Amino acid sequence: MFEEPESLDHLVQRIARQAREASYGVAVAKTEHKNAVLSRLATLIESSAEDLGAANEKDLAVGREQGLSKALLDRLALTPERIASMAEGVRQVASLPDPVGTEIGQLKPDSGIDIRKVRVPIGVVGIIYESRPNVTVDCAALCLKSGNACILRGGREAFHSNQALAALVRQALEEEGMDSNAVQLIPTTDRTALGFLLKQDQYVHCIVPRGGEGLIRYVVENSNIPVIKHFEGICSLYLDSEADLQMAREIAVNAKCQRPGVCNAIENLVVHRSFAAAHLAEIAQALANEGVELRADVEAGAILHRAGIGYRTAAEEDWSTEYLDLILSIRVVSSADEAISFINRYGSQHSDSIITTNEATARRFLRAVDSSTVYWNASTRFTDGYEFGLGAEIGISTDRLHARGPMGLEELCTYKYEVHGKGEVRK
Amino acid sequence: MFEEPESLDHLVQRIARQAREASYGVAVAKTEHKNAVLSRLATLIESSAEDLGAANEKDLAVGREQGLSKALLDRLALTPERIASMAEGVRQVASLPDPVGTEIGQLKPDSGIDIRKVRVPIGVVGIIYESRPNVTVDCAALCLKSGNACILRGGREAFHSNQALAALVRQALEEEGMDSNAVQLIPTTDRTALGFLLKQDQYVHCIVPRGGEGLIRYVVENSNIPVIKHFEGICSLYLDSEADLQMAREIAVNAKCQRPGVCNAIENLVVHRSFAAAHLAEIAQALANEGVELRADVEAGAILHRAGIGYRTAAEEDWSTEYLDLILSIRVVSSADEAISFINRYGSQHSDSIITTNEATARRFLRAVDSSTVYWNASTRFTDGYEFGLGAEIGISTDRLHARGPMGLEELCTYKYEVHGKGEVRK
Repeated sequence: MFEEPESLDHLVQRIARQAREASYGVAVAKTEHKNAVLSRLATLIESSAEDLGAANEKDLAVGREQGLSKALLDRLALTPERIASMAEGVRQVASLPDPVGTEIGQLKPDSGIDIRKVRVPIGVVGIIYESRPNVTVDCAALCLKSGNACILRGGREAFHSNQALAALVRQALEEEGMDSNAVQLIPTTDRTALGFLLKQDQYVHCIVPRGGEGLIRYVVENSNIPVIKHFEGICSLYLDSEADLQMAREIAVNAKCQRPGVCNAIENLVVHRSFAAAHLAEIAQALANEGVELRADVEAGAILHRAGIGYRTAAEEDWSTEYLDLILSIRVVSSADEAISFINRYGSQHSDSIITTNEATARRFLRAVDSSTVYWNASTRFTDGYEFGLGAEIGISTDRLHARGPMGLEELCTYKYEVHGKGEVRK
Repeated sequence: MFEEPESLDHLVQRIARQAREASYGVAVAKTEHKNAVLSRLATLIESSAEDLGAANEKDLAVGREQGLSKALLDRLALTPERIASMAEGVRQVASLPDPVGTEIGQLKPDSGIDIRKVRVPIGVVGIIYESRPNVTVDCAALCLKSGNACILRGGREAFHSNQALAALVRQALEEEGMDSNAVQLIPTTDRTALGFLLKQDQYVHCIVPRGGEGLIRYVVENSNIPVIKHFEGICSLYLDSEADLQMAREIAVNAKCQRPGVCNAIENLVVHRSFAAAHLAEIAQALANEGVELRADVEAGAILHRAGIGYRTAAEEDWSTEYLDLILSIRVVSSADEAISFINRYGSQHSDSIITTNEATARRFLRAVDSSTVYWNASTRFTDGYEFGLGAEIGISTDRLHARGPMGLEELCTYKYEVHGKGEVRK
C-alpha cells in the first residue's frame, strides 16, 4: 500500500486554506503574544547561525556552478553579520507599535448608531520575491506583527536558505503556542505552483510581488487576487528658475550619487531655461566629478559643450529609463508647468522634487505632479519606510490603491466598521 | 477615398488615453468648478426629460421584444420621477464636501523634512455596470466630484439611455470649460471591448464592477487593472443567550423583511441554544407572519415543529446562499464562539450582527467576526453610504484592500505624500 503523492495544485490549495484558517487566530492575537514569537525568532536566528550558514552555502554552491554573477551571489550570501542584522530587524519589528485595533475614524449618523472605523489585518498576504533570503524573515515578521498570516514564495537561487529560515519562523510560532501555519513557505519554486497560488482568491487576500519587472508582470497577468505592485522608480529633480544654487547642486548630487542603484535615486534632471543658462555648467561639473555619465537634450548639450563637460545626446527612451547606475539625463524646459507635464509623462509616479524659493510655484508642483511622494527643496532619496518613520517597510508601492509609497505595518492592515446600537432598525 | 474604420482595440485604447490626459486637469480642478459642472448637469437632465424618455423608450421596446422580465424592464425604465430624482442626486453630490486636498496625516522624521499625507484622486476609474441607466449619472457625478476621470461601460439593455445620459454629462463638462473626456462611455456593449478595457493598466487605475456574479468574475479573471469588487452579501444575525427578546424580534424582522432584495438583508439567523429553547418560536412566528419562508437545522426544526410553525429542513448550501427574497435559514449553536466560526465560514464578510446585553460577548463578536461591518444590537440594514453619513456611495465593496464596505467620495481617492524641506539630503 502507498499513498498517492499530493498533486501540486492540491498542495498549494491546502497551504492557502491552512493560512486562512490560521489567519483568524493571528488577527485577534494579543500584542504581547506576537512580540513573544518575534523575540523567540530573533533568538533562534542567532543560535542557528551555523546551520543557516550551511544551508546558504548549498545555495551559493549551486549558484557558483550555474555561473551566477558576483552581484547576485553577494545578494544571496548570508554572512554572520547579515544573520545578526536579521535577528536585530526582527527585534525592531517587535518594538514597533501594534497597528491592529486602532480606531481610525468615527461616524455618528442621525439614526443613532455609533460607527467606529477600526484598523484590522488584511488576512492572508502572499509575498513573491526573488533572490535575497532575508526577505523571508523580514516579511514574516512584518505580517505577523500586523496580524496577518502569510504565504512566502521565494526565488530558486535561495531555496535552501529560505527553507531553513522559514523553519525557524515556524519553530518560533510553535514554541509560543501560535498556529505555525500563520507563516508558510511554498516548498517549490516551480512557476506552476506560483500560478496555482495566484488563483487562491478564496483564501488569499493580497499578493505583494517584490522583484524584477518580468516577475511582477507575470503576477499581474495571472492573479485573481489583488496585487500591490512594487515597480521601478523613474524619478526627476526639477531645478526651477528661482532655485537656490547651492541647494540645487547638493541635492542633485545626493539624489543621483548617494546610492544610484535604488528606486528613489533620480534618473532625470529637469532644468528651467534661465537657471540652466546661469548654473547648469556648475551643477553638471559637480555631477561629472562624482563620475556621473550625462545624457543631455540639445539645449543642455550646448551648455555642457561650451563648458567643456563630456556628455552624450539623450535619446527618447532615456527619459523613461531607470538606469540604477551613475547615469543622468538632463532636459531643459521653459516653465514649471512644462516640467510638471514632462514628469507626469515620462516618470513612474514614484518620487520627484522641485528646488525653488518661490512658494506658489512649489505648491503648484506639489499638487500637480502625480507621484506618490513629491518634494520641495529636499532629496528624493528620503522615500523609504525608515526615513518616513514607519519603522520598517515591506516595500515601496507603486500602486495607487490601498498603499502608495512606503508600505509599513499600517499599510498591511485594512479596516472594519464596528457599530454599536441600542436596538436601531432601518426605517 | 475613405478612412479605415478604427479597430475596437484602438478605439478602447484611445478612450483610455484620453481619460488619462483629462484626469490631470480634473485632479486639480477647483471645487467650485466641479460643482458648476454638476449643477449644469442637473439642469440639463431636467430640461432633457423628454429626450431621455424617448431614448429610454427605444431600450424598453427592444427589451419587450426580447422578452425581458417585468422586474428587469422596471429597473430599466426612466420615468419622469426617476429623471427628476437623478437630477436631485447630482445636486446632492455637488453639496457634499470635496475630498481632494484634505490633509490626512503628518510625519516628522529626525531628518527634519516635513511630510504631509494628502488625499488625492485615484486617477482614471472604470465603472462596469448592468441594467440601471441612472448608474451612468450617479457614477459620473461621484467620480467628477472626487477629481477622477471615468470610463463607463453600461449594459446592453440600457444602451440608448446610457448614450443619452453620457451625452448630457459631456455637454455639461464642455459648457463649463472642462475637458469632456473626463467622462466617456464605451460606445459598444461588445464584451471584446470590455476585455480590451481591462488591459489598459497603462492609463486606467481602478475598475469597479457593479453587477451580477458572472460579470464580476469575468472582470476579475481578465483584468490587469486593480478591481474593487461589489459581490453579494450573505449576512447573519446572531441572537445570543443574553439577547433582549423584544430587540431580537424587531431586528430579526427588520433585517430580513424591510427590503429583502438587497445585499445587507440577512440570510441566516443564528440562535444560541438556550435562547432558542425559550424564544425561537415567538421570533419565528413574527417572521412567518411577514411571509418569510423558514429553513431550519434539525434542532431549530424541532422547536418550530412543536410550535406548529411551517419550515423546510435547511441543506448545506442554504448556509451560504444569498436568497435576496423572503427566505431565512435558522441555525442553533451552543456558544458565541460557534456563532463566530459559523459566520466566518459561511458568510460573505459583508454585514453581521449580534444581539446581546453582555458587553464582553459583544466585544469578542465585534473583533472576531471578519466582516466589513459588524453590529452590536442593531440591524444589518444600515450598511449603506447614505446611512453611514457618507452622502452617497458608488457601491459597497466586498474587497478588503483600499475600500471596504460603503464606498463614497473619500474611497474614490488615494493619497500622496507632499514633503517640505530646507535643502535636506540623505546621509
